[in-house]
Amino acid sequence: MLTKEENEKLTRIEGEAPMGQLVRRFWLPFLLSSDLPGPDSDPVRVRLLGEELLAFRDTSGKVGLVDPLCAHRCADLFYGRNEEGGLRCIYHGWKYDVTGQCVDAPTEPKESNLKLTARLKAYPVVEQAGVLWAYMGPSDLTPELPDFEFMHVPDDHLYASWSTQGCNFAQAIEGGIDTAHSIFLHSTLESHRKLEEFKKSTAMTNGSGSIPQGRYRNRDNPPQLHSVDTDFGVLVGGRYISGEAEDYWRFNLFYMPFYTSPPGGAGSKLVHAFVPVDDVTTARWSFTYNLEKPHAYRDVMAMRGGSGVHVALVPGTHTPLRVRANNYLIDRDEQRTLSFTGIGGIGEQDFAVQEGMGVIVDRRRERLGVSDGGIMQMRRRLLKAADDLEEGVEPREASHGSVYRVHAGDTMLAADVASWPDDPKSKAALAPKW
Amino acid sequence: MLTKEENEKLTRIEGEAPMGQLVRRFWLPFLLSSDLPGPDSDPVRVRLLGEELLAFRDTSGKVGLVDPLCAHRCADLFYGRNEEGGLRCIYHGWKYDVTGQCVDAPTEPKESNLKLTARLKAYPVVEQAGVLWAYMGPSDLTPELPDFEFMHVPDDHLYASWSTQGCNFAQAIEGGIDTAHSIFLHSTLESHRKLEEFKKSTAMTNGSGSIPQGRYRNRDNPPQLHSVDTDFGVLVGGRYISGEAEDYWRFNLFYMPFYTSPPGGAGSKLVHAFVPVDDVTTARWSFTYNLEKPHAYRDVMAMRGGSGVHVALVPGTHTPLRVRANNYLIDRDEQRTLSFTGIGGIGEQDFAVQEGMGVIVDRRRERLGVSDGGIMQMRRRLLKAADDLEEGVEPREASHGSVYRVHAGDTMLAADVASWPDDPKSKAALAPKW
Amino acid sequence: MLTKEENEKLTRIEGEAPMGQLVRRFWLPFLLSSDLPGPDSDPVRVRLLGEELLAFRDTSGKVGLVDPLCAHRCADLFYGRNEEGGLRCIYHGWKYDVTGQCVDAPTEPKESNLKLTARLKAYPVVEQAGVLWAYMGPSDLTPELPDFEFMHVPDDHLYASWSTQGCNFAQAIEGGIDTAHSIFLHSTLESHRKLEEFKKSTAMTNGSGSIPQGRYRNRDNPPQLHSVDTDFGVLVGGRYISGEAEDYWRFNLFYMPFYTSPPGGAGSKLVHAFVPVDDVTTARWSFTYNLEKPHAYRDVMAMRGGSGVHVALVPGTHTPLRVRANNYLIDRDEQRTLSFTGIGGIGEQDFAVQEGMGVIVDRRRERLGVSDGGIMQMRRRLLKAADDLEEGVEPREASHGSVYRVHAGDTMLAADVASWPDDPKSKAALAPKW
Repeated sequence: MLTKEENEKLTRIEGEAPMGQLVRRFWLPFLLSSDLPGPDSDPVRVRLLGEELLAFRDTSGKVGLVDPLCAHRCADLFYGRNEEGGLRCIYHGWKYDVTGQCVDAPTEPKESNLKLTARLKAYPVVEQAGVLWAYMGPSDLTPELPDFEFMHVPDDHLYASWSTQGCNFAQAIEGGIDTAHSIFLHSTLESHRKLEEFKKSTAMTNGSGSIPQGRYRNRDNPPQLHSVDTDFGVLVGGRYISGEAEDYWRFNLFYMPFYTSPPGGAGSKLVHAFVPVDDVTTARWSFTYNLEKPHAYRDVMAMRGGSGVHVALVPGTHTPLRVRANNYLIDRDEQRTLSFTGIGGIGEQDFAVQEGMGVIVDRRRERLGVSDGGIMQMRRRLLKAADDLEEGVEPREASHGSVYRVHAGDTMLAADVASWPDDPKSKAALAPKW
Repeated sequence: MLTKEENEKLTRIEGEAPMGQLVRRFWLPFLLSSDLPGPDSDPVRVRLLGEELLAFRDTSGKVGLVDPLCAHRCADLFYGRNEEGGLRCIYHGWKYDVTGQCVDAPTEPKESNLKLTARLKAYPVVEQAGVLWAYMGPSDLTPELPDFEFMHVPDDHLYASWSTQGCNFAQAIEGGIDTAHSIFLHSTLESHRKLEEFKKSTAMTNGSGSIPQGRYRNRDNPPQLHSVDTDFGVLVGGRYISGEAEDYWRFNLFYMPFYTSPPGGAGSKLVHAFVPVDDVTTARWSFTYNLEKPHAYRDVMAMRGGSGVHVALVPGTHTPLRVRANNYLIDRDEQRTLSFTGIGGIGEQDFAVQEGMGVIVDRRRERLGVSDGGIMQMRRRLLKAADDLEEGVEPREASHGSVYRVHAGDTMLAADVASWPDDPKSKAALAPKW
Repeated sequence: MLTKEENEKLTRIEGEAPMGQLVRRFWLPFLLSSDLPGPDSDPVRVRLLGEELLAFRDTSGKVGLVDPLCAHRCADLFYGRNEEGGLRCIYHGWKYDVTGQCVDAPTEPKESNLKLTARLKAYPVVEQAGVLWAYMGPSDLTPELPDFEFMHVPDDHLYASWSTQGCNFAQAIEGGIDTAHSIFLHSTLESHRKLEEFKKSTAMTNGSGSIPQGRYRNRDNPPQLHSVDTDFGVLVGGRYISGEAEDYWRFNLFYMPFYTSPPGGAGSKLVHAFVPVDDVTTARWSFTYNLEKPHAYRDVMAMRGGSGVHVALVPGTHTPLRVRANNYLIDRDEQRTLSFTGIGGIGEQDFAVQEGMGVIVDRRRERLGVSDGGIMQMRRRLLKAADDLEEGVEPREASHGSVYRVHAGDTMLAADVASWPDDPKSKAALAPKW
């Protein structure tokens, strides 16, 4: 549990809030490149850290992320004309380039200097991996992009999507780093039956390939969790005691300030980002990539429709079809006969539990158990970084994109390596190097 | 009229408000048994006195009314699995019985004691007369159920329904105890024409059976109201002066803390309950029962559709079809040619006037007349009981369910019994016995 | 720009706000006569200056504008019966005439005086030019009606309409008085192409009749604006320098406290009113009239559908079809190929820019240019009048309806009359005479 004050510090990101200042030190994914499909395409409203913004792609393909209100008389540039080299206000025809600079003010006389001094607040944007990234922090502290593996794979090896989520970013991250929930929230009743059979048998595997944790699950107990601070964030190791020579380990990752990664299936890997839209809304990003081969077309089609961790969306938007207002279209019959939740979609199952807590969960009410060790470590890491920044210590991860060059995974380790991440040697190996 | 302070005390029932504390001393009807139709049926969200709750029926048929957020990490148990003997959270599989006790915490090691100390806030529930009743007060002060007649009739002699109403409970009660409004709000233009004819004639009855008050109505004046405190609440007597040897009297009842009853038609009797959902929302209950015979099937069908005092609902919900946002589907042509209001349904007519005042009416604005005597008496009774409770005096009605064994009615009384309820002898007979 | 305090004073009109008090000194158009089509027609909800009101037309055709809550128990008289000579409450049958006086209280005994003292707050109403006008100020200061030309034309020479607008009245007025926006906001791409050709040519006119300003537009610069205080409000002159013997001038008018008028086309003239509904909502009125001849039937049909400055409405309401929530149904293809905005309708184009600023624009953010001189003058005029009233000086325009006998227009003036409105002689001619 957290105190009221700690909870406020962990969750609030609007205005001058310390956690918002911390997040501003990092590049933020805010749109897919395809959300602004081509030169002079339609402007798109963006909300980040509680700020209303407007994104547009100019004639040369460059993207601007600017204050949406015209510097002249505050008309909404969303309705603007995306013309040659800039966005023109429909009210009096003032025009701005992607840096926010006014480049034409036709209601002013030629000799006027007004347009030279008129400019919109604008944030730097870079485009990589088919994603638009914004930087909203101090201009002299521009960070490095996080150098994830998926930043470098060929276009067709990566499928990225995002959807809005009706809760604070921290409880979304907690879902992402939570290693214990998958065999409940995302499971089928069939997998539970097989697990029960396995527990009663003497076989080493239950023959189910769909839930790797289950194969090595302790017959009586959940996995032991071990979490440790690293240079990129927090590593959470789950040890599934086999009772044999080797134990099965799974490693989930939290990367500062809002990324998570679970161990993937064969070939396919996954990174999530939980970008704060405002205090009570989050953009959930999912990057599914494969180092070895392109995604099959049928898989891309399925992901567009909401398969896997991707979310089924209202067409033409990033709004989920299944939301709290419609109880995520829960099917109680399916819940009784087929799946643990009756809710279609992994992402939507996450939304049901994360949003169901309320938009900002009151962490004084929770009772954390041994399965929540990674979450506690993640909170401490974020709170420490926010405290540090208040005292003038900049987050090192922001200027070291290379620390993101690590992915989640699983492995077998000798059973006498009782608690690998707690071992002084591995701890030293994992600890931040600065 | 009430002062601002009196009005606040009369109406506020959330949190620590004195009137809310008073209401918590009584059993509260909160769902029909059929809202939780069978063992392990779907959980149902409940809101009472401003608290979000969750009701579920377990495998043995017992009903729990609990905090909806899991004691572990606050996931919403509404999405939970109603399994063998309890409700299981979809996030990490923690399970609770109807008392709120955690009975399984599968993410914890066997040796953990966490599940023993993990429990949800839960309120006692009893089931009687096809209705679920909750008690939200101190555990050492559990009240008696109000021993209404309808608590004891055979199942098919009682039809109960409830619907949400968009205003504070006190102004709903005021509508229930208001004896003067029926011949306006619930009348037809035909009944008014007949009454006008009757006033001009010398006949003793106007031949209309549909509005009993009208038959004996004073030709020039409305009925005289007399109200008196009783052991169950307030009795309001309306005397219709006939000018002959006997006068016609009607008695409406207010039972503490939120029940009312009007005189019924032949055989059929009626009790209302106005249960506070929150400060600005009320659950209006109607109990239509017959001591002598079952309701005919066609009458049950009609009541389900919204006939009589029952309210037409959005299918599958307890939300009225006719609400303020759609002006109760008022039909102005019908209002000009057929009914006094043009609004279909007695309950909906009540809603139009009660909700139309605003969610909490400002009683500084009202101008009470002689027809409002019962309402004033009811307010004084509630305010006195709330004051008493603040000084440590518990409401006696709560521990005396037998005082509810009285029903409304009408009768003829000798005209020289000028004001029966004001008579010292009847006053003594009616006064609370403690 | 304005300071925060000036902006508050300019925009706030609810409760005791000084600008609201100023507006209350004037007659306010609040409904079309046809909104209350005949004797005893349906009552209509009205909201003015943040007050909830109810309008009804009685049997004799007189219109009442009253508090909507019954003086007895505050039931909503919107559901009332509009009967012979008054509006009767559906709850207990109390009845009120158009002055708000209770004329029947049937739940009271004959001898009761309650009905004599029971009355609703009511505001005086007059009906002229097919419009209902209310006065909400002190009863001893009843103003004169503004004596606009359209108050006197035959019925079929005038077409009036109104629609709600989701922003403060001051930014709506600013749009009305803004002379510079038409050749952008309300233009077609064809007109821009012609203007560009004209700028490059030596011809005196570009052959386009649809944008008169364009014909005489300075080839390199926008028109010079000159604004001056007058007895009715502010006159804004725009000088289009031709480079020849005569210049083209257009005069836009702002009349206190919320009217504007642009120069019309041949014959047809236009006055707007922007009546404060509340701080964040405005009723935009458009009076299109012709001194010489009736509107053709086809033009009336077109205006009803939303042509010209009139707004396309949700049938049976005064709510626009195109609103911010649906992005005014902007058509991006049309914006690229046909019109400057892609938004259908002149009124709707105004709404897009005026509402897009936010419901009350933060005028600290704006950067006013030479084209905004009229707006600055209008603000000063309103702020001065509100300040004066706070010091007890009543607005003179309210008691001098005749000052409204002036319409907007355009003319040719000798080029050596460099700045006609700034000329001491014309300034003296235009200045308020008191």
